[in-house]
Amino acid sequence: MTDTTLIADVQARHDHRNMPINKVGVKGIKHPILVAGRDTKSIASVATVDMYVDLAPTTRGTHMSRFLEVLQTFEFVDMKNFHEFIKIMTERLNAQQGFIDMTFPFFMRKYAPMSKTPSIMDYQVSLFGEWFHGKAYTTMKVVVPVTSLCPCSKEISEYGAHNQRSHITVIAHVAPDIWFEDMIEYCEAQASCELYSVLKRADEKYVTEKAYNNPKFVEDIVRDVASSLNQDERILNFAIESENFESIHNHSAYAMLNKETSLTTQDTHQH
Amino acid sequence: MTDTTLIADVQARHDHRNMPINKVGVKGIKHPILVAGRDTKSIASVATVDMYVDLAPTTRGTHMSRFLEVLQTFEFVDMKNFHEFIKIMTERLNAQQGFIDMTFPFFMRKYAPMSKTPSIMDYQVSLFGEWFHGKAYTTMKVVVPVTSLCPCSKEISEYGAHNQRSHITVIAHVAPDIWFEDMIEYCEAQASCELYSVLKRADEKYVTEKAYNNPKFVEDIVRDVASSLNQDERILNFAIESENFESIHNHSAYAMLNKETSLTTQDTHQH
Amino acid sequence: MTDTTLIADVQARHDHRNMPINKVGVKGIKHPILVAGRDTKSIASVATVDMYVDLAPTTRGTHMSRFLEVLQTFEFVDMKNFHEFIKIMTERLNAQQGFIDMTFPFFMRKYAPMSKTPSIMDYQVSLFGEWFHGKAYTTMKVVVPVTSLCPCSKEISEYGAHNQRSHITVIAHVAPDIWFEDMIEYCEAQASCELYSVLKRADEKYVTEKAYNNPKFVEDIVRDVASSLNQDERILNFAIESENFESIHNHSAYAMLNKETSLTTQDTHQH
Amino acid sequence: MTDTTLIADVQARHDHRNMPINKVGVKGIKHPILVAGRDTKSIASVATVDMYVDLAPTTRGTHMSRFLEVLQTFEFVDMKNFHEFIKIMTERLNAQQGFIDMTFPFFMRKYAPMSKTPSIMDYQVSLFGEWFHGKAYTTMKVVVPVTSLCPCSKEISEYGAHNQRSHITVIAHVAPDIWFEDMIEYCEAQASCELYSVLKRADEKYVTEKAYNNPKFVEDIVRDVASSLNQDERILNFAIESENFESIHNHSAYAMLNKETSLTTQDTHQH
Repeated sequence: MTDTTLIADVQARHDHRNMPINKVGVKGIKHPILVAGRDTKSIASVATVDMYVDLAPTTRGTHMSRFLEVLQTFEFVDMKNFHEFIKIMTERLNAQQGFIDMTFPFFMRKYAPMSKTPSIMDYQVSLFGEWFHGKAYTTMKVVVPVTSLCPCSKEISEYGAHNQRSHITVIAHVAPDIWFEDMIEYCEAQASCELYSVLKRADEKYVTEKAYNNPKFVEDIVRDVASSLNQDERILNFAIESENFESIHNHSAYAMLNKETSLTTQDTHQH
Repeated sequence: MTDTTLIADVQARHDHRNMPINKVGVKGIKHPILVAGRDTKSIASVATVDMYVDLAPTTRGTHMSRFLEVLQTFEFVDMKNFHEFIKIMTERLNAQQGFIDMTFPFFMRKYAPMSKTPSIMDYQVSLFGEWFHGKAYTTMKVVVPVTSLCPCSKEISEYGAHNQRSHITVIAHVAPDIWFEDMIEYCEAQASCELYSVLKRADEKYVTEKAYNNPKFVEDIVRDVASSLNQDERILNFAIESENFESIHNHSAYAMLNKETSLTTQDTHQH
Repeated sequence: MTDTTLIADVQARHDHRNMPINKVGVKGIKHPILVAGRDTKSIASVATVDMYVDLAPTTRGTHMSRFLEVLQTFEFVDMKNFHEFIKIMTERLNAQQGFIDMTFPFFMRKYAPMSKTPSIMDYQVSLFGEWFHGKAYTTMKVVVPVTSLCPCSKEISEYGAHNQRSHITVIAHVAPDIWFEDMIEYCEAQASCELYSVLKRADEKYVTEKAYNNPKFVEDIVRDVASSLNQDERILNFAIESENFESIHNHSAYAMLNKETSLTTQDTHQH
Repeated sequence: MTDTTLIADVQARHDHRNMPINKVGVKGIKHPILVAGRDTKSIASVATVDMYVDLAPTTRGTHMSRFLEVLQTFEFVDMKNFHEFIKIMTERLNAQQGFIDMTFPFFMRKYAPMSKTPSIMDYQVSLFGEWFHGKAYTTMKVVVPVTSLCPCSKEISEYGAHNQRSHITVIAHVAPDIWFEDMIEYCEAQASCELYSVLKRADEKYVTEKAYNNPKFVEDIVRDVASSLNQDERILNFAIESENFESIHNHSAYAMLNKETSLTTQDTHQH
């Protein structure tokens, strides 16, 4: 076996270009996780994970294998554990600043509105964490599929109204005591109607009529979700996107609203 | 400069495993093309191209760079030129059998139904060509986005009906004198309504009411498109898929119908 | 609450077009699963699931919500349970033929070759099941990322050799007693080198030298994997693909080999 | 025909929620374009286009069809025309601020390093334009595929060195007189080796040896590209990413470097 103490450590060498690097690390790792749920003990999922630290101007490279070693020890995702995970990674890499991004499907049990048939729905959620000066900052993102029904189409037509699947996306700086389920419900409550995996005929009648009674433009959706989020003190600032996969076009209608200028308009595209 | 006659030709060496290879070549090349149009002179697009030949059991490898050299000479896509392209490639590689697959966005000018506002719509189309025993075989694929409106939702609800964007896909063995536009129009004619890029208010009223008057399940769509294709002698056999991106669910409703058993059910997933 | 017995069953109505439909159902559902492992008890993952049945020429539509109701009861994936799942679905839909396709990340624990550091690696695997005349047929697919190193580049260059990440894909009709791990190991054994999530410096030296000592074209890889699979009686017929994401080009090198003509060349693109 | 003057204009109505919307418009439109080239007259391509404006707090909705009407008139992409395009759109929508994002494949003719064989290479490029207070701001993005070869692997191994395809991404605020070709060449010059579509054997020997003589970490690449960009006054500030699709792992190595704090670290993920 090779004597590893004799193998050169090329990354650790001094670098003469004198340029700090903002983020260096590993990207696109698939990792099995357990996510803490508000209404259930924990939910299994598979995350796509990116892990970065900053790099001092005098060092040539980081030690990529250490990120993966830290990741092997991480399985359970709640806010406390996620912060601990970023801290350990940042320390293990001897860095000042650390970043972990993870995106995964999240499952919620729902009940059909009339028949009460149970089923599970999937949502795409993300946690973006940053460790800086001994403190963790967390951004949460949820992508919530819903129904939107066009107010203009309803009003100008003798009957019917075009409707479609839409995505409401919230990206927000959050306090540690908020749940994915809270954020998802804020979005679903402001759509023309929410989605379900199983709908029996009585349910289908219900959701069809509910959407028709509740028409919303993309503009209405982002404003109405913003009104809800403004009431919740755990949500510090936010950007909301609504994208309708128009049933009458081959492109989307889109709106985006930022609460604070501290989140620039570009940040909504961040991930 | 290196004397290339002295560089070993590793691929050309004899192979002892005695196993023919069905397809060998290059995959995923982006290439600018001009597509022959039925109603216009030619349409610029960008294709993703795969190029393969068979390989004899006694040869270790093919010459990958030759595929790319042949591709550099190819720009204009009509059936005659496409067949010539496969023939030249197969001969250049000294093979028995050759395959070229290309997929690209295809643009058609359309006029809004009431205001007659012109706009262009995009469709995803493909040509899959095979050269075998001195003869070319062509499979055409079109993916046509349309509106579908649910007959069940309409009938059981007091008002409204859920509708959504759907994809009608046809994959068919075709004679050389058929156009992409023909195939696209067969699909659009059987949807609840077709799509347009620009719709003014009078047009939006029209398409909303047309879809409501014309409800279709995924099952109805594949059967009705099949009835149309059966009338066209240039279409030898086919598979039709309809996928509704349901506005009330986070999954699709789907149907697939094959005309002949010579196209197995699995072939519809081919590309 | 609506009296559901009074709501019209539009799908169940008689259809006059007299066309059978090969596949009808639901597509693209995300569903949490537990996968049976050869070396571990069970592994949590998230599957993307498609569920279809055939439809008689005299029936207008299938009952889409029933597919989802069956899916809610399914969690544990082994061959026996998967067959039972297809059978129950086919019966619940009153169909002759049933199809379930599921694709998911699959995790295996591996040990770095020199340091023996443990880590988990992800693979994309699929099960395609068909129920027909009271019997289940299963197709397994694995996509195995590996290193390939070019024999030509090595031989003609004074030093170095281009190498890259490659995907070896096997799609095979299999007996119920084969494991994903078996199929993955057949592929990894024939690459220039296999991949690991964590490699310390002594490991990096090992994999670099191993790949250099073991150069393979895409053609070599599909032939060598074929030789292995031919020895295993549980693998009935198969197609093998190798795709190199070339480090010297912006396209892939590709080869595909079929064992039997009963799997046509087109089937390898099936999923 | 409907008298369109009698159809209600629902979008134009007064809104009482008193919330401005940062961006509202259309997203994901495929559109054929001609791109101005530094070395060629113009190059055909297909763009994916997003078009947005801001919306006043007192207006309920924007007029989505107007975006598409403006887009129909736009074909030729150079900086002057792109700015004019944003200005016209913003005025047509009666907005203060306008945004247009377009991403498309861009083709460059290259010559193999030894044989001088010509071929075309594709790159993914984007223009993000903003119109604000009568002035246009442009961000350019290029994604440049290259070869990277690992310095550590080279130094610690007796022979060989792992290498792979990598993406160098630059996103920069630019003056109007810079070309996509300039930015692409800055990236290619700092890789271990650049890519070509066609390489004959003498060329393959050349690129293999060049990469081996020129090993670079992701950290080296972003620093060396930054040094180049710092010399060009047309590039106002920038973020550079390097992502190696590691040939020895199933994940990427990644580095990102920002020139100025006015581009936050999050902006590099912007698109």
